Amino acid sequence: MTERIDGHTLLIGLMAYPIRHSMSPTMHNNAFAKLGLNYAYLAFEVGNDQLPAAIQAIRTLDMRGSNISMPNKQKVIPLLDKLDPAAEMIGAVNTVVNDKGILTGYTTDGLGFMKSLDDEGLNIRGQKMTLAGAGGAGTAIAVQAALDGVSDLSIFNRHDAEWDNAVRNVKLINERTNCRATLHALEDRDDFKAEIQDSAIYTDATGVGMKPLENETLVTDPTWFRKDQIVFDTVYAPRTTKLMKVAQAAGVTQVFNGLGMMLEQGAAAFKLWTGEEMPVDYIRHILFDEDA
Amino acid sequence: MTERIDGHTLLIGLMAYPIRHSMSPTMHNNAFAKLGLNYAYLAFEVGNDQLPAAIQAIRTLDMRGSNISMPNKQKVIPLLDKLDPAAEMIGAVNTVVNDKGILTGYTTDGLGFMKSLDDEGLNIRGQKMTLAGAGGAGTAIAVQAALDGVSDLSIFNRHDAEWDNAVRNVKLINERTNCRATLHALEDRDDFKAEIQDSAIYTDATGVGMKPLENETLVTDPTWFRKDQIVFDTVYAPRTTKLMKVAQAAGVTQVFNGLGMMLEQGAAAFKLWTGEEMPVDYIRHILFDEDA
Repeated sequence: MTERIDGHTLLIGLMAYPIRHSMSPTMHNNAFAKLGLNYAYLAFEVGNDQLPAAIQAIRTLDMRGSNISMPNKQKVIPLLDKLDPAAEMIGAVNTVVNDKGILTGYTTDGLGFMKSLDDEGLNIRGQKMTLAGAGGAGTAIAVQAALDGVSDLSIFNRHDAEWDNAVRNVKLINERTNCRATLHALEDRDDFKAEIQDSAIYTDATGVGMKPLENETLVTDPTWFRKDQIVFDTVYAPRTTKLMKVAQAAGVTQVFNGLGMMLEQGAAAFKLWTGEEMPVDYIRHILFDEDA
Repeated sequence: MTERIDGHTLLIGLMAYPIRHSMSPTMHNNAFAKLGLNYAYLAFEVGNDQLPAAIQAIRTLDMRGSNISMPNKQKVIPLLDKLDPAAEMIGAVNTVVNDKGILTGYTTDGLGFMKSLDDEGLNIRGQKMTLAGAGGAGTAIAVQAALDGVSDLSIFNRHDAEWDNAVRNVKLINERTNCRATLHALEDRDDFKAEIQDSAIYTDATGVGMKPLENETLVTDPTWFRKDQIVFDTVYAPRTTKLMKVAQAAGVTQVFNGLGMMLEQGAAAFKLWTGEEMPVDYIRHILFDEDA
């Protein structure tokens, strides 16, 4: 078998720093190969200083597009020609598509979250979500959930550097969608417990519980959860986080890590570049040697 | 088997226009895969106008380097930091190596010519070559042959746009090497015949004989050749050119097309980027389904 790259292969990038350990190149290249699509996906170490020249390279080399990750998700916006409405609301871009020199920014993290619930046969539209974390992932989830029809959103965050950004995002959600969003202080434990108990789904987008903080969780008491709730942790390393164990101890059956979201955010970007559906189960098996 | 590109893979380019039908991506990617080297080689449609930004992209994306082909081989020179001596003499670059932001230009066409003769066990050092064509390929062959010890070089060209450039190159060869080079008018058939008959090797670097001019040749009379000469045509499509047929009709046994030169110019670039020897026989088989 010969290598599939030829003179017609178009480049897609991933611009972030650090980035060498990303699984995205393996994800996308295997999906291109499986479907016989003539693209190659490579990671480039790009920080804020190199970002303007790197975006110029998308144009010069007629790349099909790029993923954008930390620390560039906000900084990339003024360098693009157009923004998808969700990306504009979120104020962050993780996917750039180059259509004959016109660069459009999208965000697929929130799409990935909603799609991963769809994949499980779960529908949270018209229902209430309590969401911990108003950073990049949390904001993307909140905005996409609101755009997709989640009726109520209680967002919890610490009074830290993200707080003002969270205020802005809650305001935008209330102005531009039919979702009622409220911002709460994570320090108020009674309020946090009450909102979780009143929700169809609790989502943790803080990253607490990820290695090396794998013994941490914002919710330690199983009695905070109802058995009929969904509990969703955006972390996927470890595969079963401390939060998930607490939920399982409470008898919750719909407990998920962030693996499906990670795969589906990639699949959404893949679709934007290629127009094709990523073979998600095949990719899950290649990346994790796991079935759904 | 999963795709070999991961987050550590470094990009190598090919910048030219037109370029999509080049065999170089297949050549290099198969060689990387065979040796387990973590590079990917992609072609980019780059003309003179895009060239400065494309060279900037080598720096920004920390590419390992690039091949440079028409129409950029001369235009690239002022955009680089350093030039290999042969590239400087030839006034053309086909290979750029990026060493931590320092871009050095090389030319490997002449190296490929000399190496392909070595591969056949032939040594033209200390001997005389008659060479038709003073364009890019001809100049690269002339300069490398002179640098490597060919004693006499009779270069034939038409009085066309390349003539002044040929005058400059002959002057440089005489000044900087021990080779005695002379420039001759291709229109003088008697002189052309006499120089060929006095040479150990006749090389045609004009491209005459290549499809769709596959029925053309500068030498039509078999009596111009001696049986103990080498006859070398830089064309490789068709595999047996009209010139080669004339030489074979004259009883010449050492008759070659440009396939070995093409492979060896790539192998020389491969070595500059990776430090490793390209598996040339393996690549020849993949590209042409042919053995040496």
